[in-house]
Amino acid sequence: MFRTIEWLDDTREVKLVDQTKLPLATKHIVTSSHERVAKSIKIMEIRGAPAIGAAAGMGMALAAIESKAKTKNNLLDFLRKAAVTLNTRPTAVNLTWATTRMLRVAEAAEDGVDQIVEILVGEGKEIAEEDVRMCQSMGKHALSVIESGFVIQTICNAGSLATVHLGTVGAVVRVAHEKYGGNIEVYAVETRPRQQGARLTVFEFMEDGIDTTLITDGMIGTVFREGRIDCCVVGADRILKTGHVINKIGTYTMAITAKFHKIPFYVAAPMSTIDMETNPADVVIEERDGDEIRIINGKYITVPTTKVYNPAFDMTPPELITAIITDKGIVEVPNKRKILEIHKKID
Amino acid sequence: MFRTIEWLDDTREVKLVDQTKLPLATKHIVTSSHERVAKSIKIMEIRGAPAIGAAAGMGMALAAIESKAKTKNNLLDFLRKAAVTLNTRPTAVNLTWATTRMLRVAEAAEDGVDQIVEILVGEGKEIAEEDVRMCQSMGKHALSVIESGFVIQTICNAGSLATVHLGTVGAVVRVAHEKYGGNIEVYAVETRPRQQGARLTVFEFMEDGIDTTLITDGMIGTVFREGRIDCCVVGADRILKTGHVINKIGTYTMAITAKFHKIPFYVAAPMSTIDMETNPADVVIEERDGDEIRIINGKYITVPTTKVYNPAFDMTPPELITAIITDKGIVEVPNKRKILEIHKKID
Repeated sequence: MFRTIEWLDDTREVKLVDQTKLPLATKHIVTSSHERVAKSIKIMEIRGAPAIGAAAGMGMALAAIESKAKTKNNLLDFLRKAAVTLNTRPTAVNLTWATTRMLRVAEAAEDGVDQIVEILVGEGKEIAEEDVRMCQSMGKHALSVIESGFVIQTICNAGSLATVHLGTVGAVVRVAHEKYGGNIEVYAVETRPRQQGARLTVFEFMEDGIDTTLITDGMIGTVFREGRIDCCVVGADRILKTGHVINKIGTYTMAITAKFHKIPFYVAAPMSTIDMETNPADVVIEERDGDEIRIINGKYITVPTTKVYNPAFDMTPPELITAIITDKGIVEVPNKRKILEIHKKID
Repeated sequence: MFRTIEWLDDTREVKLVDQTKLPLATKHIVTSSHERVAKSIKIMEIRGAPAIGAAAGMGMALAAIESKAKTKNNLLDFLRKAAVTLNTRPTAVNLTWATTRMLRVAEAAEDGVDQIVEILVGEGKEIAEEDVRMCQSMGKHALSVIESGFVIQTICNAGSLATVHLGTVGAVVRVAHEKYGGNIEVYAVETRPRQQGARLTVFEFMEDGIDTTLITDGMIGTVFREGRIDCCVVGADRILKTGHVINKIGTYTMAITAKFHKIPFYVAAPMSTIDMETNPADVVIEERDGDEIRIINGKYITVPTTKVYNPAFDMTPPELITAIITDKGIVEVPNKRKILEIHKKID
């Protein structure tokens, strides 16, 4: 199965898919240098919050090996510098979280330097495995709503490429695909302007032998009307305690159209996606550079001076969402109390 | 104002915009050769049923001049050959209709050859003018529903470039824009896969100084929710007597999303678009080559072997349509009787 990042035990190296080359070429970066991992994060050869968290963790393990330190203090000095090096994207909390976690483990260890290095290798792998388990858990919970033979429509990329291995929506699809002997199909929506559906989702599901059909964003009404789709499963960048879901632009239009056709609309996201603070009215949607719309593959598709509006995300209200599939279980929305309860459990 | 095709009285030539170069370059073809006009139709330098009808009519006028015939019989022989030459796209009824009309006029004329040539020049111009008047009429009727300050969302290109001058949706926008002193705005939806909104609609409204914003197909829900749009006006490839509208893929999704936001959804089309024969269940939607989705500007945007589904049109049921703006007046739908009545009037 397709894996975004992994630790190679034999050579003590990190191997990751170069996402800047996808989908036309599948190239891997294999490195024993934490600086090379830092570069991969910086230039987005690896992206997606869980994936770069794992990359930073494994990068710290590489640094521990590279340090060749003889004393714990020397090792810690080297690791602290490596943590700074690996934090190349300031807004990505997963980077700081992962490097801090690795540092704490090193500081707390009472063993010799060689043992601490081994502990760090184990911890780096563990960060990745936790993400894999979380996704697996989401996929297993989803089996209560995804039936054999389902055709699932999704938008953007909430697959392996944003996580370590299975993805969020990716886990829902893959776990069901395995459970039902391959009897699961996917419709991937292109997702203009950045086309993550066409570039990434189609690619990674095809890699895993899952029957995947690409459609454009405007075709969703037609495929619903023709009875081609059994349910929608989309990811989430943020879920408010009210059940409002912020996700890639196009999600809201899809949810409205699904509701019109009485097609179940699920959101797959770990509980850590839930934001207990912000109110729907206070959500600010990022507006991105208009050239994302005007230019494709380096060429203008419209008049270069065209005025564009390019919101990167949209907000779907709970009344359009059938349920949220989390790593802790299925939450029907609107169900503020249930979100609060589950959230309390993991606090 | 922007004009797709026109007759130059001074030089007795036809001038048309080369649509294959749009929107990155505005080049015109100016010719006195009916064979060159035939080529323009064939390679789609000019396209859209009303526009190619006018091109064929003017092509016949050019042929009459080119013939240098001394007798009416010689002229008719030349014109019959020219009609065959101009009929380069077999399914385009407007071509046959226009060339036949020109031939009938020549056959019926009792004047000398020189006079017949002048009559044909007049008739070719008249075919174009009839289209302009029909569009103008649509635009005037629309004033009863389009108010000053309206922001109008449209999909695909139902503008000048598909007709001789104003367009269908184009007329609604332009007549209101003129009437309200420029106080009309447009949101053009990109319209994947072929991006006619981005390539053509944006271009021609910008040419006329109309404030136009480009968005992608997935953004419609967001712009509705944000209150940016006052109404939608879309074209139609065919309108059934039941009020079902067949139009560019994405129209149906837009209509559902507009209904959800209680935004008026108008269809602008001449009465000649109404098909009194076909039932909704019998409509076959053309499925086009998947490379329209896979390739943009000559480059793959996805895995080349990706399976795609590419319906070119969709069907919007009457309950999602506020009214149809025709050249004969506004028809509220569902209102089968009204469609029948108006249709009877023009039979």
